[in-house]
Amino acid sequence: MTEIAVLRQHIHGLPAETYAAELRDRLPDADVRIAKTPAEERELLETAEIATGLQLSPEELEAAPYLELFACVYAGTGHLELDAFRERDVAVTNGSGVHGPNIAEYVIGSMIVFARDFKQAWRQQERREWRSFPTTEVHGSTVTVVGLGAIGEAVVTRLEPFGAELLGVRYSPEKGGPTEEVYGFDEVYEPLSRSDYVVLACPLTETTENLIDEEALRTMPTDAVLVNIARGGIVDTDALVRRLRVSGLRGAALDVTDPEPLPEDHPLWSFGNVHITPHNAGHTPEYFSRVADILADNVERIRERGYEDLKNQVV
Amino acid sequence: MTEIAVLRQHIHGLPAETYAAELRDRLPDADVRIAKTPAEERELLETAEIATGLQLSPEELEAAPYLELFACVYAGTGHLELDAFRERDVAVTNGSGVHGPNIAEYVIGSMIVFARDFKQAWRQQERREWRSFPTTEVHGSTVTVVGLGAIGEAVVTRLEPFGAELLGVRYSPEKGGPTEEVYGFDEVYEPLSRSDYVVLACPLTETTENLIDEEALRTMPTDAVLVNIARGGIVDTDALVRRLRVSGLRGAALDVTDPEPLPEDHPLWSFGNVHITPHNAGHTPEYFSRVADILADNVERIRERGYEDLKNQVV
Repeated sequence: MTEIAVLRQHIHGLPAETYAAELRDRLPDADVRIAKTPAEERELLETAEIATGLQLSPEELEAAPYLELFACVYAGTGHLELDAFRERDVAVTNGSGVHGPNIAEYVIGSMIVFARDFKQAWRQQERREWRSFPTTEVHGSTVTVVGLGAIGEAVVTRLEPFGAELLGVRYSPEKGGPTEEVYGFDEVYEPLSRSDYVVLACPLTETTENLIDEEALRTMPTDAVLVNIARGGIVDTDALVRRLRVSGLRGAALDVTDPEPLPEDHPLWSFGNVHITPHNAGHTPEYFSRVADILADNVERIRERGYEDLKNQVV
Repeated sequence: MTEIAVLRQHIHGLPAETYAAELRDRLPDADVRIAKTPAEERELLETAEIATGLQLSPEELEAAPYLELFACVYAGTGHLELDAFRERDVAVTNGSGVHGPNIAEYVIGSMIVFARDFKQAWRQQERREWRSFPTTEVHGSTVTVVGLGAIGEAVVTRLEPFGAELLGVRYSPEKGGPTEEVYGFDEVYEPLSRSDYVVLACPLTETTENLIDEEALRTMPTDAVLVNIARGGIVDTDALVRRLRVSGLRGAALDVTDPEPLPEDHPLWSFGNVHITPHNAGHTPEYFSRVADILADNVERIRERGYEDLKNQVV
């Protein structure tokens, strides 16, 4: 019976018990155990073949002699010391793809907040003021999606019927993609220069760090909207604040910031045309259900052909 | 040369000059004249074959001896005395369809405002509070669209990639429709009883007046969201307020209200889970461009085969 250790974790307020229950539903013939204390966690790792959670340090890995797979529930694994897993020949998978629906909805909702100027509506509602105001449309606009991974694709798929021109930016533009045009990062200014909406959905790497800097912001039209659901470091925050102060940008929807959490005295909080959410675009009530789907699928694969060719395999 | 009189009008703040310019672009061989005063309007109507605007009274019609077509720029023509046009054998067309993109965006944006709880984000932003909060998804939810005309269809088309179950309500359910299931108004409680979102996109008629009354609201799940972009009279406002007071509804997005405009002392203004816009979901910067498309198309048709079989013909 495969022993699966569910480590201590909670994601956006969802308890690990939910995850364990979802796993038991899908894997009635596995032994799904849940750790509630550090001591229980150490005990479970002594015998588990599979561990699943947010993090597993090299020390914990050392104390898990039977471990064959660490199923990380985050989409990214930048926080793990992957070399330690390679040395021990322990497979690692991530939760990539679980965020598609919710983050794509966040992106499209944010775009429409600006298109329909919902913030103006709320300001008027607070004053009980019934007065029509002009708005715009996503229809007929140009949208650049930077990063065409699982999340970028989910955004593009949902935007298709809106009648916007869709442009994409990715590392390997030669691969093509779901957008009408696909650019490499070395030619990012071309799509930026004619975008009404710029959606950042790429990982934070050397290439993307500070991608949206002074130069990029000056290249974007003054009525463009920036949506960042990737990582705060992709945007030069100071340059963004300067751009906003001179009305050089229609607005920004930021689920991630740099620094993060955003300090209370940061000027970004105060802009009427900035929509800030506390890094919870990734929240979905389906989170554990979706990562349980991935792990259950992988347990099937392991039983059939071992620890090769797993879904979302990183190591 | 066809004489077209552009009557005094503005729609959501757009000036009639824009409309006249759009018509001249499309109809270089027509004589497009614009009235800026009541006297000019009377003068133009004395010779015009086509008049276009918001309203034409029986008295004005009487004073327009050569008129063959009144191209009303509103989607609805309930405000016109259509019998007077019939008697005079003057054709009437409406602007149906011009609102599809913008109203559909409003609807989907409103749904996501509730799904991602953007109002909570804004309350936190005002307090400069960085704290994750739980949200939900449109994905996997059940959406009922009441009315499957041009606007209802535009909503359904855009919702398709979101992975929701789509139900429709229309007068002639036997016609089918773009949703997975289609119900008649006599069986409206069935879809209401299992909806996470109820979108009202039907005309106000004897059948739909007070459709969303006490009984309907009690039939809807307590976590349902009501979106009304149709007419205020389709919802029993007092019943809605009562339902909101007992947390019997997740919330409402209302572009139209009854009474309208909403009086300053009305309780609806104060609910944190009600999103009110001043009947401007219909606003689009493309308004006059789209009605000009309809009229230009109809001028073509008139030249080919007369005043029969016009686009959006009502009389």
